[in-house]
Amino acid sequence: MEPIRGFITNRSRNYQLNIINLMKHAVRIYARQEILSRTQDGSFFKYTYKDAYERMQKLANSLESLGVKIGDKIGVLAWNTHQNFEIYYGLPGMGAVMVTLNLRLTPEDLKYIIKHSGIKLLILNEDLIPLAEKISEICTDVKSYVIITDKPIIDLRTSLNPIYSYEVLLKEASAVYEWPYLDENSTYAACYTTGTTGKPKGVYYSHRVSYIQALAFCITAHMNIYDVVFQLVPMFHVLGWSLPLASVYVGARIVFSGKWNLDDLEEMTDIIVKEGITLSGAVPTILMAMLENIKKMKTKPDFNRTRFICGGSEPPIILMKELKELTGAEIQHSYGSTEAMAITTLNTSKPWLDKDLTEEELWKLKQKQGQVVSGLDVKIIDEMGKKLPFDGTSSGEILIKGPWIAISYYNSEDTADLFTEDGFYKTGDAGSIDSEGYLKITDRIKDVIKSGGEWISSIDMENLLVSHPAILEAVVVGVPHPKWEERPLALIVLREGFDSLNKEEINELLLKKFAKWQLPDKILFVDSIPKTSVGKLNKKYIRTKYKDILLNM
Amino acid sequence: MEPIRGFITNRSRNYQLNIINLMKHAVRIYARQEILSRTQDGSFFKYTYKDAYERMQKLANSLESLGVKIGDKIGVLAWNTHQNFEIYYGLPGMGAVMVTLNLRLTPEDLKYIIKHSGIKLLILNEDLIPLAEKISEICTDVKSYVIITDKPIIDLRTSLNPIYSYEVLLKEASAVYEWPYLDENSTYAACYTTGTTGKPKGVYYSHRVSYIQALAFCITAHMNIYDVVFQLVPMFHVLGWSLPLASVYVGARIVFSGKWNLDDLEEMTDIIVKEGITLSGAVPTILMAMLENIKKMKTKPDFNRTRFICGGSEPPIILMKELKELTGAEIQHSYGSTEAMAITTLNTSKPWLDKDLTEEELWKLKQKQGQVVSGLDVKIIDEMGKKLPFDGTSSGEILIKGPWIAISYYNSEDTADLFTEDGFYKTGDAGSIDSEGYLKITDRIKDVIKSGGEWISSIDMENLLVSHPAILEAVVVGVPHPKWEERPLALIVLREGFDSLNKEEINELLLKKFAKWQLPDKILFVDSIPKTSVGKLNKKYIRTKYKDILLNM
Repeated sequence: MEPIRGFITNRSRNYQLNIINLMKHAVRIYARQEILSRTQDGSFFKYTYKDAYERMQKLANSLESLGVKIGDKIGVLAWNTHQNFEIYYGLPGMGAVMVTLNLRLTPEDLKYIIKHSGIKLLILNEDLIPLAEKISEICTDVKSYVIITDKPIIDLRTSLNPIYSYEVLLKEASAVYEWPYLDENSTYAACYTTGTTGKPKGVYYSHRVSYIQALAFCITAHMNIYDVVFQLVPMFHVLGWSLPLASVYVGARIVFSGKWNLDDLEEMTDIIVKEGITLSGAVPTILMAMLENIKKMKTKPDFNRTRFICGGSEPPIILMKELKELTGAEIQHSYGSTEAMAITTLNTSKPWLDKDLTEEELWKLKQKQGQVVSGLDVKIIDEMGKKLPFDGTSSGEILIKGPWIAISYYNSEDTADLFTEDGFYKTGDAGSIDSEGYLKITDRIKDVIKSGGEWISSIDMENLLVSHPAILEAVVVGVPHPKWEERPLALIVLREGFDSLNKEEINELLLKKFAKWQLPDKILFVDSIPKTSVGKLNKKYIRTKYKDILLNM
Repeated sequence: MEPIRGFITNRSRNYQLNIINLMKHAVRIYARQEILSRTQDGSFFKYTYKDAYERMQKLANSLESLGVKIGDKIGVLAWNTHQNFEIYYGLPGMGAVMVTLNLRLTPEDLKYIIKHSGIKLLILNEDLIPLAEKISEICTDVKSYVIITDKPIIDLRTSLNPIYSYEVLLKEASAVYEWPYLDENSTYAACYTTGTTGKPKGVYYSHRVSYIQALAFCITAHMNIYDVVFQLVPMFHVLGWSLPLASVYVGARIVFSGKWNLDDLEEMTDIIVKEGITLSGAVPTILMAMLENIKKMKTKPDFNRTRFICGGSEPPIILMKELKELTGAEIQHSYGSTEAMAITTLNTSKPWLDKDLTEEELWKLKQKQGQVVSGLDVKIIDEMGKKLPFDGTSSGEILIKGPWIAISYYNSEDTADLFTEDGFYKTGDAGSIDSEGYLKITDRIKDVIKSGGEWISSIDMENLLVSHPAILEAVVVGVPHPKWEERPLALIVLREGFDSLNKEEINELLLKKFAKWQLPDKILFVDSIPKTSVGKLNKKYIRTKYKDILLNM
């Protein structure tokens, strides 16, 4: 849709929005602010915004010395460290495109992304050399490698070639760099979404959209200079959910998690207390595991100042309550996607709701995905495309549009039907919005269970299941049924110390919220639930695996 | 300077930033939020964001019915009421340009602005009819008038013709309006700056720049939904310093002051307490008078939740201290201009300064203009145009540039030298920036006192003077001197209850900070100090009036 020109003066010679300015200006005001980066021995590398900005300039000079030019695509396969933070600014600041690579993808998928985006140079952590080697065996597109390592480059045994040391490059580079004045529509970064179907799809974020989104994020998440931000969310997931950008705008203290996994949760808990973390992104799986840990601790950690923005999937109410009770932490439910750049919604309260609602009602409210961020247009449509009212009950597919929402995938014409002609992104999620503007996701359109023409919400059923003390994880999918077309199947992982659970007890629980006809036809107890590379329940895989389970009964 | 194109994808079909979206989206989330508007009998008109948005749509329909088209300029001569708030969105939302008129200007200046901008329709408050009549006597450009009044239009005795009632128009209009999808570079509003020299100069703000500035303001001023904002600053001053836009983004409760003057300060004080105001703009003159009032009150008002963003000129440290001690209110020093859209700087603290500085040092810090808002480029240059370091001592002219900074005046070619080729606005203010990024204005370039080649800071001297318990107001200007070219002259207004003050006592005070040669050659005690239409010390007038005072000695 072409915009209509109003009265336009010479103001239209616009100052271009550019991500490097976030850092450049932050250094003017917050030069002394501290940045911490966790190393593998558990200690912290510490430096300041000023130091980081110097190294960003060194990085830009280094990349130039390697022949990188404006518009070139550079792959980044890296953990959450200060070097990755430097890359977030120095690389796109010089006009190149930062292609963040999910290091949990298969070499085949990574090969696809490298070819699709046109990556010629790859920056990676030393411990990811084996993965890079696997890629290089099947893809010769990458012409050189920059390794983030403390070791002399000569000590690294690898078939990758040529290789450069990130640190040596920076050491030899000038700390003064004249950033180009870029058109704001130049690509800042690219992120590939794997979803559960087809090839990875590239979402390309321009400097403009990343800049506007960072500002909106700061406001929505009530961020300011007094925040201490924990970069726990992988920086290859939707720009680390925007925190590396938003934190810099407000000059927050930033703590980078380094490489970590579920075994390090106790250490992560310590860091939150010791560093006075006020804000961190997280997914329910992590918070659940953290809570389990905390339950075993004699002295509970003090998370009174901490708020977790929780995305990926819906956090169970029991998780939110128990974490609050035991530690003081607040979980703010958020909803987003690669296409929507980090957060589409965030669940925060309002003065009148604090006053009007009972404690229980407020908890129930917190379970919703939250308010759609200001700046975004949103609509809910039914199967015929008709717009539905925001009444909290009408449910349909959620469509969003706005300054930072994708309007297409990069070079992927067969996905055009995921975007509307007038610029909306079809999220594929079904939900409702209430009169206070809170979004509630009821299902993935494609994960919907439709039994004899009636819908069953798999998400609501999963949430109810995990509220049971014996259940650690649960997934509900629709599988083919000879009579009802589709019927629900539940997979359940029991908590440590619980050997079994009978079906009657589960059904009794489910009957609190579901009709008898909605109960799962089958319940399977499993050791773990298949997940996608980004840790979401892989319902597509589960549906395929169990497609015959009700047919053969 | 033309921007360099990096890698540009189809992302460049940008979603246009449009001010009406701030309101449209706020209503989705904050429909129930309250807006209060003070009427002339001291009571409040109350409604919600939802109600206001309906009336904005009615206004857009009304303007269309009067023949207003996209790109038309509409003059607004109005007090801070909910109708003016509706105009802030409904008028530019439909694609017209809102020309805010300073009702304290002379009819001649207003005539100039009307002709210069091309205003054909004027919206005004009923009590401003006499002013509009005076304008209409000398300017026939305005073809119709919309009067904000509760009275039947037929009861108004006026030579203005034709006239329409704002309320009747809205009553008859549809509450549904399809906002045009405007190019973001379309003008949102125009504001004319009078300064102290020459004709008024028009600064035209596009939707884009107003939008980005509003977001930056929200972050810089730490605004959120829990704020209760007092619109005390006239809405014809630099878009009411951006509060009508920023407040809506965060969904704050807004209280419009209505028409008021210094005699109403007690009522304003009451409102701050009663409505729980957390944020208000103000100028030192107002806060000084408010403090004087409060000193006389037996029970001091509780302003513990209140922060005043104080602009226009430097608030004396004694004012900040006493107001804090007596009421709990915090004054945050800010610096801005029409050209820079509201705030260029805001003085907020930082965690490490809170820790490192003594109380007295923190007060001294609070007196500075504050940190330049992130998003703006700033430099300080000496007389030769050389860039000076941010070391807190090097002082020169302050130049700014950024997404919302003017790059020219509208149709005013002879003012080109106020802007640089590379897009900086020359503020005409002299100052320094310290290593923490705090700006300190030392003087107006044109107000500089240069005695025998040496500079004397008139602002520092004025601040020191008003710290004296007997001095209410003071101004220091440079006037011609036969020997030293220029020497300082001080005009002083004594506080109620003080009849006199001898020169020796004043000099003793000034010697705390100034050298003997810097002391004023002459001190005059006056009843009041000449001000400009926006309440600033009219130094140009004072210099002219007293130009011979030292020559005839």
